Amino acid sequence: MEFGPGSAAHLVRLEARSGALSGPTANLAPGFVQANLAILPRALAYDFLLFCQRNPKPCPLIGVSDAGAPIIEALGHDLDIRTDVPRYRVWENGKLVGEPENITDIWCDDLVTFAIGCSFSFEEALLASNVPVRHIEDDTNVPMYRTSIETVPAGVFSGPLVVSMRPMKPQDAIKAVQITSRFPSVHGAPVHIGNPAAIGIADIAKPEYGDAVRIQEGEVPVFWACGVTPQAAIARVAPAFSITHAPGHMLVTDLVNANLSI
Amino acid sequence: MEFGPGSAAHLVRLEARSGALSGPTANLAPGFVQANLAILPRALAYDFLLFCQRNPKPCPLIGVSDAGAPIIEALGHDLDIRTDVPRYRVWENGKLVGEPENITDIWCDDLVTFAIGCSFSFEEALLASNVPVRHIEDDTNVPMYRTSIETVPAGVFSGPLVVSMRPMKPQDAIKAVQITSRFPSVHGAPVHIGNPAAIGIADIAKPEYGDAVRIQEGEVPVFWACGVTPQAAIARVAPAFSITHAPGHMLVTDLVNANLSI
Repeated sequence: MEFGPGSAAHLVRLEARSGALSGPTANLAPGFVQANLAILPRALAYDFLLFCQRNPKPCPLIGVSDAGAPIIEALGHDLDIRTDVPRYRVWENGKLVGEPENITDIWCDDLVTFAIGCSFSFEEALLASNVPVRHIEDDTNVPMYRTSIETVPAGVFSGPLVVSMRPMKPQDAIKAVQITSRFPSVHGAPVHIGNPAAIGIADIAKPEYGDAVRIQEGEVPVFWACGVTPQAAIARVAPAFSITHAPGHMLVTDLVNANLSI
Repeated sequence: MEFGPGSAAHLVRLEARSGALSGPTANLAPGFVQANLAILPRALAYDFLLFCQRNPKPCPLIGVSDAGAPIIEALGHDLDIRTDVPRYRVWENGKLVGEPENITDIWCDDLVTFAIGCSFSFEEALLASNVPVRHIEDDTNVPMYRTSIETVPAGVFSGPLVVSMRPMKPQDAIKAVQITSRFPSVHGAPVHIGNPAAIGIADIAKPEYGDAVRIQEGEVPVFWACGVTPQAAIARVAPAFSITHAPGHMLVTDLVNANLSI
């Protein structure tokens, strides 16, 4: 695995920057950490930072920019927040108003960028330990559900915990607890195993986000805190202006998945 | 171990509140998490929260209050930040101006309280695994050193990483890496093992804080990020007004050390 200038991660960013890449980033630059982005006005940044501090499982921050700075030094060499994600979403008062490939023309010095760890990192570790991940086998989106578990509110931000679900054989579920426990900065250990109703999920076949997956005889559903949680908390607030990545179109960082393991 | 109202942790807080306890909290309420406190004006809170996010090893936040709130719900039932620490330090423009036993009369709605994990938690885990801790054996303060490692700055906060040091036999040092890696919310794995000069420590016999300890034949010094780091960063800024706990006089929380392990 090559690091630094010219690394696979850097090349993905350069392709997004040039416009050559405008699609999803799954399976690109294997081994490198991909991040969810939330870009908020400075006036909301303190509350959001506190929300992430109080809810580290759904909101594992891996980097925060200075206000107005289009870089996050911790995340990479030659990284430009305005151009290096293949596709963004622009929100006004809670409404999606655009899905541009860069945000150079709407960037302003009032914006703070939050990069949040994503499950791609721990899924890579699961696959490396021969723990099958159903939605990857089936090439669909992971199923995600609103739960009856409330996040800890912070200022204007609040809302239910959203979880992702991966069905597994019990032996694999045990391995998955061990493996993902070592990745606290990308959601960490599961929040629940087994009965969906115990966390307020009425119908496991009907996820609120993503796609339903097959649950086979003898498998148990395993639930992890999900990065959609902070997105849903932001959507509730409906800021006058905010920007996120488009789903699946992540920021590919110079951090290495294996180094997140503790 | 008893939890909730009437627990050993709660009783320590009630003793501090009544004035019956004004001394250090080491060895009180074994098993419960003790926290460093930094109480800052709201205007500095965002920069400090960001400093902690960017420097999680020296600044492992375990709770942050709402502005003006004398409670941190995550840390305990019946917990009053203004009275439940046995002794505080009050700072004005970087100068120590008082060491009161409560801060009720100087409390104001502009203050935000940051509770930061402390090494007592992982030392308990080391002792439980029969890893001797020299300064505890010798009943002195842990030796602490400024290093040549810079923290990642955030807003007005910056400064060198301060580390604590525990000399150990190599086999114990290995166990200590394993054990403390499982406690990321109380400084986590060591930042360095061996040669003090490699991290800018000129004389291991002359700590900047705490007391020097014996290093025996065949032992290696093991260095952990230390909670004095954020205190030193605050001291550099010399806020017009701030409050900390007095050294060794910690906030005893309802969190349980064993539950911090991942």
